[in-house]
Amino acid sequence: MTDTKRKIMFLNPVGTSVYDQVFADMAARYKLPGSEIHVTSLNPSIGKFTHIEFRAFEAMVTAGIIRATRAASREGFDALAIGCFYDTALHDAREVSHEMVVTAPCLASCRLATNLSNRFGVIVGRQKWVEQMSGTVRDYGFGDACAGFYPVGLGVNDFQADHERTNSLLIQAAERAIEEGHAESIILGCTLEIGFHECLQAQLGVPVIDVSIAALKEAEYAAEMKTMVNWVPSRKWSCEAPREDEITAIGVFDQSDVFGNRIVVGA
Amino acid sequence: MTDTKRKIMFLNPVGTSVYDQVFADMAARYKLPGSEIHVTSLNPSIGKFTHIEFRAFEAMVTAGIIRATRAASREGFDALAIGCFYDTALHDAREVSHEMVVTAPCLASCRLATNLSNRFGVIVGRQKWVEQMSGTVRDYGFGDACAGFYPVGLGVNDFQADHERTNSLLIQAAERAIEEGHAESIILGCTLEIGFHECLQAQLGVPVIDVSIAALKEAEYAAEMKTMVNWVPSRKWSCEAPREDEITAIGVFDQSDVFGNRIVVGA
Amino acid sequence: MTDTKRKIMFLNPVGTSVYDQVFADMAARYKLPGSEIHVTSLNPSIGKFTHIEFRAFEAMVTAGIIRATRAASREGFDALAIGCFYDTALHDAREVSHEMVVTAPCLASCRLATNLSNRFGVIVGRQKWVEQMSGTVRDYGFGDACAGFYPVGLGVNDFQADHERTNSLLIQAAERAIEEGHAESIILGCTLEIGFHECLQAQLGVPVIDVSIAALKEAEYAAEMKTMVNWVPSRKWSCEAPREDEITAIGVFDQSDVFGNRIVVGA
Amino acid sequence: MTDTKRKIMFLNPVGTSVYDQVFADMAARYKLPGSEIHVTSLNPSIGKFTHIEFRAFEAMVTAGIIRATRAASREGFDALAIGCFYDTALHDAREVSHEMVVTAPCLASCRLATNLSNRFGVIVGRQKWVEQMSGTVRDYGFGDACAGFYPVGLGVNDFQADHERTNSLLIQAAERAIEEGHAESIILGCTLEIGFHECLQAQLGVPVIDVSIAALKEAEYAAEMKTMVNWVPSRKWSCEAPREDEITAIGVFDQSDVFGNRIVVGA
Amino acid sequence: MTDTKRKIMFLNPVGTSVYDQVFADMAARYKLPGSEIHVTSLNPSIGKFTHIEFRAFEAMVTAGIIRATRAASREGFDALAIGCFYDTALHDAREVSHEMVVTAPCLASCRLATNLSNRFGVIVGRQKWVEQMSGTVRDYGFGDACAGFYPVGLGVNDFQADHERTNSLLIQAAERAIEEGHAESIILGCTLEIGFHECLQAQLGVPVIDVSIAALKEAEYAAEMKTMVNWVPSRKWSCEAPREDEITAIGVFDQSDVFGNRIVVGA
Amino acid sequence: MTDTKRKIMFLNPVGTSVYDQVFADMAARYKLPGSEIHVTSLNPSIGKFTHIEFRAFEAMVTAGIIRATRAASREGFDALAIGCFYDTALHDAREVSHEMVVTAPCLASCRLATNLSNRFGVIVGRQKWVEQMSGTVRDYGFGDACAGFYPVGLGVNDFQADHERTNSLLIQAAERAIEEGHAESIILGCTLEIGFHECLQAQLGVPVIDVSIAALKEAEYAAEMKTMVNWVPSRKWSCEAPREDEITAIGVFDQSDVFGNRIVVGA
Repeated sequence: MTDTKRKIMFLNPVGTSVYDQVFADMAARYKLPGSEIHVTSLNPSIGKFTHIEFRAFEAMVTAGIIRATRAASREGFDALAIGCFYDTALHDAREVSHEMVVTAPCLASCRLATNLSNRFGVIVGRQKWVEQMSGTVRDYGFGDACAGFYPVGLGVNDFQADHERTNSLLIQAAERAIEEGHAESIILGCTLEIGFHECLQAQLGVPVIDVSIAALKEAEYAAEMKTMVNWVPSRKWSCEAPREDEITAIGVFDQSDVFGNRIVVGA
Repeated sequence: MTDTKRKIMFLNPVGTSVYDQVFADMAARYKLPGSEIHVTSLNPSIGKFTHIEFRAFEAMVTAGIIRATRAASREGFDALAIGCFYDTALHDAREVSHEMVVTAPCLASCRLATNLSNRFGVIVGRQKWVEQMSGTVRDYGFGDACAGFYPVGLGVNDFQADHERTNSLLIQAAERAIEEGHAESIILGCTLEIGFHECLQAQLGVPVIDVSIAALKEAEYAAEMKTMVNWVPSRKWSCEAPREDEITAIGVFDQSDVFGNRIVVGA
Repeated sequence: MTDTKRKIMFLNPVGTSVYDQVFADMAARYKLPGSEIHVTSLNPSIGKFTHIEFRAFEAMVTAGIIRATRAASREGFDALAIGCFYDTALHDAREVSHEMVVTAPCLASCRLATNLSNRFGVIVGRQKWVEQMSGTVRDYGFGDACAGFYPVGLGVNDFQADHERTNSLLIQAAERAIEEGHAESIILGCTLEIGFHECLQAQLGVPVIDVSIAALKEAEYAAEMKTMVNWVPSRKWSCEAPREDEITAIGVFDQSDVFGNRIVVGA
Repeated sequence: MTDTKRKIMFLNPVGTSVYDQVFADMAARYKLPGSEIHVTSLNPSIGKFTHIEFRAFEAMVTAGIIRATRAASREGFDALAIGCFYDTALHDAREVSHEMVVTAPCLASCRLATNLSNRFGVIVGRQKWVEQMSGTVRDYGFGDACAGFYPVGLGVNDFQADHERTNSLLIQAAERAIEEGHAESIILGCTLEIGFHECLQAQLGVPVIDVSIAALKEAEYAAEMKTMVNWVPSRKWSCEAPREDEITAIGVFDQSDVFGNRIVVGA
Repeated sequence: MTDTKRKIMFLNPVGTSVYDQVFADMAARYKLPGSEIHVTSLNPSIGKFTHIEFRAFEAMVTAGIIRATRAASREGFDALAIGCFYDTALHDAREVSHEMVVTAPCLASCRLATNLSNRFGVIVGRQKWVEQMSGTVRDYGFGDACAGFYPVGLGVNDFQADHERTNSLLIQAAERAIEEGHAESIILGCTLEIGFHECLQAQLGVPVIDVSIAALKEAEYAAEMKTMVNWVPSRKWSCEAPREDEITAIGVFDQSDVFGNRIVVGA
Repeated sequence: MTDTKRKIMFLNPVGTSVYDQVFADMAARYKLPGSEIHVTSLNPSIGKFTHIEFRAFEAMVTAGIIRATRAASREGFDALAIGCFYDTALHDAREVSHEMVVTAPCLASCRLATNLSNRFGVIVGRQKWVEQMSGTVRDYGFGDACAGFYPVGLGVNDFQADHERTNSLLIQAAERAIEEGHAESIILGCTLEIGFHECLQAQLGVPVIDVSIAALKEAEYAAEMKTMVNWVPSRKWSCEAPREDEITAIGVFDQSDVFGNRIVVGA
């Protein structure tokens, strides 16, 4: 049994720090001893994004995610979780993460849900999201396990506005997923559906996956594999990273203030 | 028969103007009468990218593509072709294109190749590219029609360095695609494999698709459908665009000098 | 910029000329300058088919399509569009088209719809058609993009009988496709649903694809690629054509009066 | 245990009777007691086809297959086997077969091969055939079970020309299928590869499926299900048959001399 | 025409003989002359299973199926049908069947249904079964042909309890499958839905497949292929059987009283 | 941060204890503090299985796996890992695990490999295994990520016989996977390929997954999710467990001496 210290970043890929504390509280509650979690968001210079519900919004923050990934890797993080259920720029970030492992909520949640059931339903905010997310779920190989996407008609920034109303909408959608879609477990398909899984699970009687916890814990698990077993990212074939001299010549990959905010848990 | 004026942008999503003229020459040769083609590249402030062979490079220029898409739409373009065979940010750009149609080379080429044959082989620069590109081809629905990817061991910036050597390498790879992979047509899977298709086609005796021409012509065809039949992008469900007031509040979507260079053909 | 003359045949694969004028009017309205369009139907000796809604009807007219393809190729056509949404005998006709490109409405429409949206719904006449057409859409690689087939309960010959009623049925079915199937664009899945797309598009607010226009324009686009870029069909492997001496020996491939009617537009 | 009389047609869909006797000999050897087998070919008026290796050839004989199907059904046949490994017009013929069941060699052989092994290789004549046949195998749901297609470089009419040479070529290809493709059984993918399966099976030590026997026996099995259990074709939804009055009005479906030849076995 | 004697076992993989007679009656009615059918169930020492609706129940009886397969093979049976619509242990049993062919109801029924229609619906007992059975249907390659699973809310042991009620529930579910799922044929997806197909077929007007008959007849057909054409299971690659000396050393594969009951029909 | 005690069983599903110590040593080295690991094998009464390379062998031990799962659940284990790369009886065991989570090596390894690379190759013992394992990998959704299976020609019991030879064979196969299959990471596809991953990883320069570690750690991770977040298996729809009174009536599910051996690590 080797040392179990590990350092993980939970990156909320938006230009506001307003949700950082809620993720930090979650991290404090669910992390392992020996884990140091840094909850970060991007510097508002990336744009005053409070959500990235649109593909075009994602496209505007990917540069920030790449810079954050490089910065985290330089700081010696073992793993990084990208805090958006679109799993924005997951494969791009992995390319420049050096020995740091990069994870994301959709992938992490589908894996957990299929450990606990054969079919999961995903409760999302808006119908807008469904086509892209269902493509991602299919690309990850979970197409047959997915019992459908169930929108509640809320935007990312609405989930935390009125907890009672949110809870009620999530319950209704989850019941439809279970009764009509024959879902056997529920994924709360937005990192800002945080804080509802316990109550829902108690009411619904099936596993309810909070995707922020899922992303953090998958990152922590990956960090553990890295530090214990030395399983670090491949750099072969499609995993090849660009050369540092080329990156330097291009000149926009690094930025001193890439993070807008940082809350450290468990240092 | 209605008016056939149309305005098309061919956007080379890199931070150098060094390849713009070669695309402009191609456009001049292959465009329809009535088409005005603007060949553009991104402002070097996006980074001194001469290629975007890496996922992380793509991720750094997507903001530029989004800004260019918005700028082109505001300027009244009917269609925009993204000039990279990764089809970088195609769906993201489409979201903010208003009534302008956005196309890209991989999609355009696969469609042309399957009009002329049942199976195509793709000649690429490096093995690095294959995993991502084959995923794209599969996502587009051409998985069964693809006879494989055949790398020649060149980077994007190498293709135009020594035409004779490039030609020879392309021929060899294409012959393998045909004889071993039973390809019936060839796609030259990089916009900088431009200039070789005629010679290869003559030697190989099968259709050889130049992907820059394919992207431009698909854009022109889409522009024609827009101007003649009024077929413009859907804005329903997953195609919904962000609201302009939100974009303004976020504040990074627009930039006066998004293009680094522009060559106008056929004005 | 090279010469832009091109010669296209729109073949209505039935044994009646009754619908030829409606297609000719469409062609006159939507063709490019420089395009000469011949709208043809088969000689009634093929059988007095006014539609080919049944697989067995298609099977009876394929010989006529093969003969028409050969005749069109000999006459120097650059492209031929087969005017039935089953895309009847598309691959068979391609085999004997020599340097002429063959296209068809289902393929052409799915491509256009996925340029303008991520998901399309198809409005068809009868449930009878759905299984075969959805197989075709899946074979073309558009399975994931298809939001379903929505029958209106009309046969091919009913669409043009009472325009008001047809319009009303199409609107209702399209609304179901959009609201229940989350379609983002609509394909009018029968060449005889011609004449309704403008009105529907205005009412529905999403792109509505007329499949006859789609087939004609894809053929024209292919003809342009042929004449400008010299992209003609492959004759390698599965695209190999039978030898002419064998065809002569077999003796039934050619017939002087294969076409029952011909309207020339834009000569 | 009910009566076991049954009447089956084996239709060789070409315009020559030259191969009818070889199929009749096979039928005589392998049929059940109580089965009456009629081996037929099409009237040479369909065209002097000795094979239908080309898609365009298939397209020319489909009308003959439809007419033969209707004629067989009227004569009271219980089942019909279409004697070409392309399974030419299988679904079209099924539509007009009334209570007669229609089968074909590719489907029948894939089923038998996957009863006896998990992976089969298909030995075909020419590379030309592979793309179409592999599409059919995939459409039937056997894509994952198929260990590949192995051409021997012979046309349909070559297989029976020099039995020793054919046997040697088939053995070599089958060995490659087994050793390189890890095939566990072999399908001889042309009805004219008849007569070789016993010798090959003895030499190779794995099941070798003769596709003519497979087609005949699947037809006989279907006939048995029809006569014993009253399982006849569905006429619902996509299986709906055209109305007889419409067929009469069209006027080309019936022909007195649709068959060019007939050998009756076991009457 | 060779000898047509054949010996088939129909194995009901439960630890009760209570249903053996109903299968024996079916066998007596539907077998061919020359077929000797042994209907067996497992010795109650396997556990007092009257059904295997649960995966864990299946897992407890697989050892019994393996022993029964070996025993049947030693007794010289030509084919064995496993009498459960889960097709429990089909591939496992095939591995140790020597020259005996092993079949099962789900595979046999899907094949029959797709001979008679393009889409089938499956009427099952409980929603519990659906996820596993639909996975099996997909694995067999019938995913696109399956119009859905329709549970009636009965357990295996309920179907034969009140025939009138069962009949009424099956009719209702089948009507939903046809009208809502556009099924064109019906599979009664449990061997204990035996005895209802004739009545349902008459009422519904589409083919209704009894899966016990299907399994028995597919086994009989396989036995016929074995005895007439010498098509016996492959033992190559994944079909390799364990060596007998290893089996003897392990010591649990054989048991004198593996069968709990046996009814012989047609000896 | 809650309590981090957790109790995990690593079950080697064979009837010999000969490999238990090697797994216990692995567990001791790689477990988290707070984890108590019990390495068990089945009582030899299940049969003297030293491996379960054959499907029929798996089928003989599944009853033992079910009993072991129930016993482990009753003993209060949080998670159980089934120690065979076939993931034998994974879904069956999950059905009766109550609140215990069940994992297995193939699933766990594919997940780890796709966190570290886009494509993995699997080094297996014998070609015999490939068809079944590749089916499992495909069913799990990793079909596109799998760069192939590479057998070394060893049986399960051979891997630990001559470490030098095994190492050399694994290296050779892995190099082929990387160079020919373009694998970017390697999975050692048998639990008895244990002990080689460090050396291989050092030599190959890509991640090399030991599947025993993967299975154990995935179980530990699942146990952590259970104890920290209360994520326990669903019992809805296909996850429904049989009732205990029915299990008692059947009478074979429980056995006092189901485990043949037990080594406890970290108590």
